[in-house]
Amino acid sequence: MVGRSDSVTEAPAGKTVLASSVAKIYTGEIKKGIEALGRKPKLVGFLANTDPAARMYADWTGKTCQETGFDFELREVDKEELEDAIFQANEDDAVDGIMIYFPVFGNRQDQYLQQVVSKDKDVEGLSHIYIQNLYHNTRYLDSEQTKKSILPCTPLALVKILEYLGVYNMLLPYGNRLYGKTVTIVNRSEIVGRPLAALLANDGAVVYSFDIDGVQMFNRGDGIKLRRHRVADVEIKLEEAARLSDVIITGVPSESYKFPTESIKDGAVCVNFSTAKNFDPSVKTKAALYVPSIGKVTITMLMRNLLRLIDNKAKTVASA
Amino acid sequence: MVGRSDSVTEAPAGKTVLASSVAKIYTGEIKKGIEALGRKPKLVGFLANTDPAARMYADWTGKTCQETGFDFELREVDKEELEDAIFQANEDDAVDGIMIYFPVFGNRQDQYLQQVVSKDKDVEGLSHIYIQNLYHNTRYLDSEQTKKSILPCTPLALVKILEYLGVYNMLLPYGNRLYGKTVTIVNRSEIVGRPLAALLANDGAVVYSFDIDGVQMFNRGDGIKLRRHRVADVEIKLEEAARLSDVIITGVPSESYKFPTESIKDGAVCVNFSTAKNFDPSVKTKAALYVPSIGKVTITMLMRNLLRLIDNKAKTVASA
Repeated sequence: MVGRSDSVTEAPAGKTVLASSVAKIYTGEIKKGIEALGRKPKLVGFLANTDPAARMYADWTGKTCQETGFDFELREVDKEELEDAIFQANEDDAVDGIMIYFPVFGNRQDQYLQQVVSKDKDVEGLSHIYIQNLYHNTRYLDSEQTKKSILPCTPLALVKILEYLGVYNMLLPYGNRLYGKTVTIVNRSEIVGRPLAALLANDGAVVYSFDIDGVQMFNRGDGIKLRRHRVADVEIKLEEAARLSDVIITGVPSESYKFPTESIKDGAVCVNFSTAKNFDPSVKTKAALYVPSIGKVTITMLMRNLLRLIDNKAKTVASA
Repeated sequence: MVGRSDSVTEAPAGKTVLASSVAKIYTGEIKKGIEALGRKPKLVGFLANTDPAARMYADWTGKTCQETGFDFELREVDKEELEDAIFQANEDDAVDGIMIYFPVFGNRQDQYLQQVVSKDKDVEGLSHIYIQNLYHNTRYLDSEQTKKSILPCTPLALVKILEYLGVYNMLLPYGNRLYGKTVTIVNRSEIVGRPLAALLANDGAVVYSFDIDGVQMFNRGDGIKLRRHRVADVEIKLEEAARLSDVIITGVPSESYKFPTESIKDGAVCVNFSTAKNFDPSVKTKAALYVPSIGKVTITMLMRNLLRLIDNKAKTVASA
């Protein structure tokens, strides 16, 4: 019973999964969508800052869009002229989708600008109606359920990654596929962390959401009886939540921040959406699956949202 | 934020999954296997008792075998003549597979009889070499890894059910696909419970195995570093293990036994392999997926094992 039975393997059991593996699944679907459409959809990106990271993201979006078959135009404008430029693009029938490279002013005015983008062209899915639908677990724009609501692209990318990783159980009914899963999210921004917590809880998970203001638990109650999530302030340490969690998602914009590896549950799924590496390489001694960055999936979701916006518009015209 | 947001759904979120849904996946594969073989494989079942349950199981195996394309023959013999009858079937080239409907003597002599069946015809996968391979996480019979070892059919059926239910993560390397999963098994028989615990632990799970003698934990150590499982006696209450478990498997042969529903983790997977119903109908208020019985999958695995035995034999002849 001893001998080779106790032999120890050398490499950690954890496996790295690259965003590109997930993205390519959707690229095929998107290309087919463009083919069916019979024309190149046009996406306009607005750059009104000199942030090199924003510029890089813009270049990257442009490259990916063109490779996939979209017409991408980067419009560089002065920040004081951005609102007018957005109005113009909203009115222009040749423009299918619009996105803004933030930060512009770097304060609440940016949230105002985001709402200036017509909801019919908002590829990032940040218009108030979309976010409100997300929080209320309302998945369609119309009562006939023909037009799906748009999801914010980074939370959506994380959902698609969790689907790919087998965290969503496809045998469960749509809307309940995270039932039984516990998730820790380190980030509660209005753009990603908070909508993500709501989205995953609406799909059935118990979510611990951490930020500097404290911890909140998002869930649908015992036996996921509630139709949508509820939120409660809770007292739980990060290490304790981590030990309970099947999934850990980080988005801390700091190079010095590292998630404590020792508190990760053996065999967990770890995903980082920050541009900084929030997990130490030792993560693979604990995690079964580790996704170091998600950017490529996010861009794919921008393109997917653009096709959905065009589809929703066609349905609106058809039913008018 | 209140109002419809707090509306409560009526039915429990849990979903029942029938063994027939899992079995039919393998029936197709098995039929193709028979087609490729070009002849009807012959399975002989020995019945040497008057137990109505054994008779029913025999009739059911026969019916399923015939529907799927096997030649099934039930041989009813006196228990004192069974050993000779098995010897004869072992030697008969027209017989591909052999199984015995237990109990025969109802004591250790039954284990002796089981070992009388030639390992080359043992569709139940209970020959010592197969069980030893299972415990040692040795998956092939030969060093060239061309002939897969046979797994005992009930534990194998449970593995296939857990694969179907999405508990095995297909993104992880073969052999590690239960990494991160905690399982409670109530039954530690030599035929099902103990080999099952070893099998699931060898695939990466942490398993709590309960029987009247106490609790054992089967696992491959921190970060599944060990090549095969180890076993430790542990002190943990059933309720506590259940609360930690993603999967609960019961096999208590008693109509009065019921697993305590209130200790099942929200969203767990619950599978019963006893002929008695070990879960109360309330299980669906806690479990996400519930499999009430597994018999149909077990029979399918008998047939699958038979094809594998024929395949292994062909490979032995080819390499001789």
